[in-house]
Amino acid sequence: MGYIIRFANKEDVRSIHNLITELAVFEKEPDAVEVTIADLEVEGFSDNPKFKTFVAEEEGEIVGMALFYERFSTWKGKTIHLEDLIVTKSKRELGIGKALYSKLMTYAYENDYKRVAWDVLDWNINAINFYKNSGATVLEEWRVVHMNEQSLEAFVNKL
Amino acid sequence: MGYIIRFANKEDVRSIHNLITELAVFEKEPDAVEVTIADLEVEGFSDNPKFKTFVAEEEGEIVGMALFYERFSTWKGKTIHLEDLIVTKSKRELGIGKALYSKLMTYAYENDYKRVAWDVLDWNINAINFYKNSGATVLEEWRVVHMNEQSLEAFVNKL
Repeated sequence: MGYIIRFANKEDVRSIHNLITELAVFEKEPDAVEVTIADLEVEGFSDNPKFKTFVAEEEGEIVGMALFYERFSTWKGKTIHLEDLIVTKSKRELGIGKALYSKLMTYAYENDYKRVAWDVLDWNINAINFYKNSGATVLEEWRVVHMNEQSLEAFVNKL
Repeated sequence: MGYIIRFANKEDVRSIHNLITELAVFEKEPDAVEVTIADLEVEGFSDNPKFKTFVAEEEGEIVGMALFYERFSTWKGKTIHLEDLIVTKSKRELGIGKALYSKLMTYAYENDYKRVAWDVLDWNINAINFYKNSGATVLEEWRVVHMNEQSLEAFVNKL
């Protein structure tokens, strides 16, 4: 009940990193997080930050976040990508995720973004239902493609 | 045969817009392009451009492009998103798409990006096979979600 939603600052990077790791575990990729606390500080909280973050703070603790950045759609114009939306396990089902999501959507609307986009795992039915109920659309025909670091190196070295 | 790959400049915006529209038609959404030539000029070719573009030029004509921008993965760090890769219809099957793709991958590798990501339509089998053969991975479990402009407005106004 007693939480506030605010923009993150540099002092929150450790909490943000903890939430990123918690989300990776939930998404069944516990070893996927290569980004360090120092990386987050440099990339997110110096000049030209590469992302912004809304955090939910309750009694001095960060209990959730919505981390996002700008993208550009050649169809619609400037858009927002929601990279991570997470509430720590012990604080779920209390409306904090909805509050973070609503804050981000309000930010996007007030700043004239043409779309908010994100990716969801197809087995995460609770999340999908929540998104659909809010008016979002799951694009069934599109697939995400990744050229990861190792494949990139291998591909370029064969050119 | 006689094409070069180079970064686009402001004089190329009309050609870029034509290619964007051609891709939208191919993707069966001919009316989806709301971005104007003027938008592209402002967003891509002024201070703090929101995207970069490699173009393929043949005898003074732009015949293809790879339009991209930076993203941030909370798992891997800074990444590139390939928004549009297109070669105009009369110039396909000549290796120009591969050349644009290779140029982008080389750029990503040399500038220490941790990943290149993009979206593909699940019925675009030729593209999917090309991507897989190059070492990229299609993420079968993930779905793209969009909150579009109309839904965003409706959602925020109900809060």
